[in-house]
Amino acid sequence: MRGALDCSSGNNQKTMNRAVRILRIINAEKSEFNEDQASCGKLCIRRCEFGAEEDQEWLTLCPEEFLTGHYWALFDGHGGPAAAILAANTLHSCLRRQLEAVVEGMVAAQPPMHLSGHCICPSDPQFVEEKGIRAEDLVIGALESAFQECDEVIGRELEASGQVGGCTALVAVSLQGKLYVANAGDSRAILVRRDEVRPLSSEFTPETERQRIQQLAFVYPELLAGEFTRLEFPRRLKGDDLGQKVLFRDHHMSGWGYKCVEKSDLKYPLIHGQGRQVSEWPLPRIPLKLPPTESKAPKGCSLPLCALLVHLLGLSAVSSHLPCPQARLLGTLAVSRGLGDHQLRVLDTDIQLKPFLLSVPQVTVLDVDQLELQEEDVVVMATDGLWDVLSNEQVARLVRSFLPGNREDPHRFSELAKMLIHSTQGKDGSPTGEGQVSYDDVSVFVIPLHSHGQGSSGH
Amino acid sequence: MRGALDCSSGNNQKTMNRAVRILRIINAEKSEFNEDQASCGKLCIRRCEFGAEEDQEWLTLCPEEFLTGHYWALFDGHGGPAAAILAANTLHSCLRRQLEAVVEGMVAAQPPMHLSGHCICPSDPQFVEEKGIRAEDLVIGALESAFQECDEVIGRELEASGQVGGCTALVAVSLQGKLYVANAGDSRAILVRRDEVRPLSSEFTPETERQRIQQLAFVYPELLAGEFTRLEFPRRLKGDDLGQKVLFRDHHMSGWGYKCVEKSDLKYPLIHGQGRQVSEWPLPRIPLKLPPTESKAPKGCSLPLCALLVHLLGLSAVSSHLPCPQARLLGTLAVSRGLGDHQLRVLDTDIQLKPFLLSVPQVTVLDVDQLELQEEDVVVMATDGLWDVLSNEQVARLVRSFLPGNREDPHRFSELAKMLIHSTQGKDGSPTGEGQVSYDDVSVFVIPLHSHGQGSSGH
Repeated sequence: MRGALDCSSGNNQKTMNRAVRILRIINAEKSEFNEDQASCGKLCIRRCEFGAEEDQEWLTLCPEEFLTGHYWALFDGHGGPAAAILAANTLHSCLRRQLEAVVEGMVAAQPPMHLSGHCICPSDPQFVEEKGIRAEDLVIGALESAFQECDEVIGRELEASGQVGGCTALVAVSLQGKLYVANAGDSRAILVRRDEVRPLSSEFTPETERQRIQQLAFVYPELLAGEFTRLEFPRRLKGDDLGQKVLFRDHHMSGWGYKCVEKSDLKYPLIHGQGRQVSEWPLPRIPLKLPPTESKAPKGCSLPLCALLVHLLGLSAVSSHLPCPQARLLGTLAVSRGLGDHQLRVLDTDIQLKPFLLSVPQVTVLDVDQLELQEEDVVVMATDGLWDVLSNEQVARLVRSFLPGNREDPHRFSELAKMLIHSTQGKDGSPTGEGQVSYDDVSVFVIPLHSHGQGSSGH
Repeated sequence: MRGALDCSSGNNQKTMNRAVRILRIINAEKSEFNEDQASCGKLCIRRCEFGAEEDQEWLTLCPEEFLTGHYWALFDGHGGPAAAILAANTLHSCLRRQLEAVVEGMVAAQPPMHLSGHCICPSDPQFVEEKGIRAEDLVIGALESAFQECDEVIGRELEASGQVGGCTALVAVSLQGKLYVANAGDSRAILVRRDEVRPLSSEFTPETERQRIQQLAFVYPELLAGEFTRLEFPRRLKGDDLGQKVLFRDHHMSGWGYKCVEKSDLKYPLIHGQGRQVSEWPLPRIPLKLPPTESKAPKGCSLPLCALLVHLLGLSAVSSHLPCPQARLLGTLAVSRGLGDHQLRVLDTDIQLKPFLLSVPQVTVLDVDQLELQEEDVVVMATDGLWDVLSNEQVARLVRSFLPGNREDPHRFSELAKMLIHSTQGKDGSPTGEGQVSYDDVSVFVIPLHSHGQGSSGH
């Protein structure tokens, strides 16, 4: 997944389409195409009674627009770019549809119990009040539903076209004075202000979702087909460990205990490895297999499918003696939430990954109207390629050192996004001074929050 | 559950037994007996090779003691005091056993991969290091396992004696310079310092665990036997709502959406009501039924079983027109974690509560050695009866106003615990000035953290 998607919208509020937006691709030599995809644009939410025309181009101005917002999305593909491309082309439409279905509730002083506004019980407004339901809860619900709808669309499209793959999804939506960040996967968004660095998302990986995944395998042991052990150990066990008491964790434990090793504990672990960095680790022992359906390479890519899988498996990594590979689910996937992967199976088995994956995002809300915004307050969204080599604090330092010196540059947010990518590519004069290089695709959006600079700059 | 368990150990390190500890019971007139139970004492963890004698009294000094700590526990019973009494008599033994099983790992510089200390792979210490496994993770694991073991013991004992009921459990353990707080239920522990109030636990109720509970009903719809709806609505729906689009949430949603009401949505909700206060709310529509086994009242109680259930159902509450009853699971239970309830069923059905309940606690760790302790830094542990009427900040204000004026009183931590209870009982001169009265049992421990005052004072 080495490479860098470099896309820019300029720092104005113009609507964009993807052809214009994508300016440059820095390919990381892991493959000939890029698995990171992005999408951004103006969000026009129409009232139902105006008669939405379903075939209208979403990214053009709608004269009957009712609520206007902005949308930015990053998709980090694996197993090929097909799912990421579909998500970049689809998710905003799903979101618009979901928001339009509840827009009447969003614009009311308080969401009504009945969308029609008719009050069936006189105390209905009190019930809504007591539950603390606000307009933002409808946006959160719409984002959650849109991710799921998009996942279903991707599943159908991949099956129909014989393609495979999956992707993470990180979406930011600016609407009614709030910024919503919805994340399913291991991309990340942070708020950078003069005196504050605030994470706006959490990552979802086999490590961070260990207990949910182990719990599912406990409830449905048949999902492991007798090939994997649900338990976590500090390393994979071997024959010499039999009969010994070793450190372990099961689904109900956040702490550790000791258990006496039995033969079944020697199976390959449901979740194995740890950390994020994919390069320079040994290969996972159980790689992927193709679904038993006839498969084609994604459009625009002439590589055979076996090459597509290279990305997912990190085969470009060099072998070494470091003990821990990146944490993977069923020896295969390094993320536990995202879109796609409907047909993904563990190599040489019928063991499916999809039951363990969630398409639903976690949504956080930033009340932008409540912030005393400074000119240089920004949100940085990026795929894991950036965060593998730069910490939140390092990114914040780069932001704070770059923006004040470039106040006159109308493209300074764009340039900042480019600079952040360059600092992961081992370019001469990289301002990090850390000497770390990302071997993954890297995509970055820098979103200025101050109204004078509203819009986005993506790289 | 009105009443107050009033127990005191004085502020010294002497070991205590329960007969000495319980000084006084303030009964809240909800029943003739008290559903809150408590337990505290010195914790002596022996090394296995010293040959633990299983029948030795835990609360007496052990000459072969190896690690010494302190233990405080509160249990808030429902459906009678039987489970709470069993938990107060059992959980510390389970914990000691679990800790003794891993003590060799706890006292090592780093827990070894193999409890024997033999190194099978030369890099085993690195694997443990990379997972970040520390001694405190073994204590957390031991607490998690002890709660589960205790729950199994309670299940067997209740069945054998024909008793019923369940209880919440809140445990604090001081060990190796750290304070561990393990919580399963809706009791709460907070740290109160001169400039800081820090929650040391979260509550587990049908509301806070809504998504976990709805998810289980989604995976196993048969658990609802067609009698309940998994979905959450702002109020219970009725015939007039049919065909309307109303606010709802399902298991995957943290936000809200609208759905068109179908007939199945009119069923009683899996989780219904909201908030904590049990008094002054209307009764739940679906009360409990007794298990079909022969049942006896708990020891020391001459009430028939139908009276026991009064507590669980809050029948002492007066009816009113306030719209929201306390949130309950399957119309029955107001907590979602705890011990016991193995036989609990929804009235007139075979629908079991136990599959939805977790006995595993959430454990937080306070690194006491890292705090710059002041003389008057305390941990306040209390059952929900206290927190129903006093916020964390109100309790902190009471602590800070009481302790400095009573520096000469050797029993001031005891007196503080008593004062906190009185301030929930509507006593004249109650220092809260809030006029709120708890109709529930109230039990309070005040634990001074400063070494000069170590020990505990419970009320």
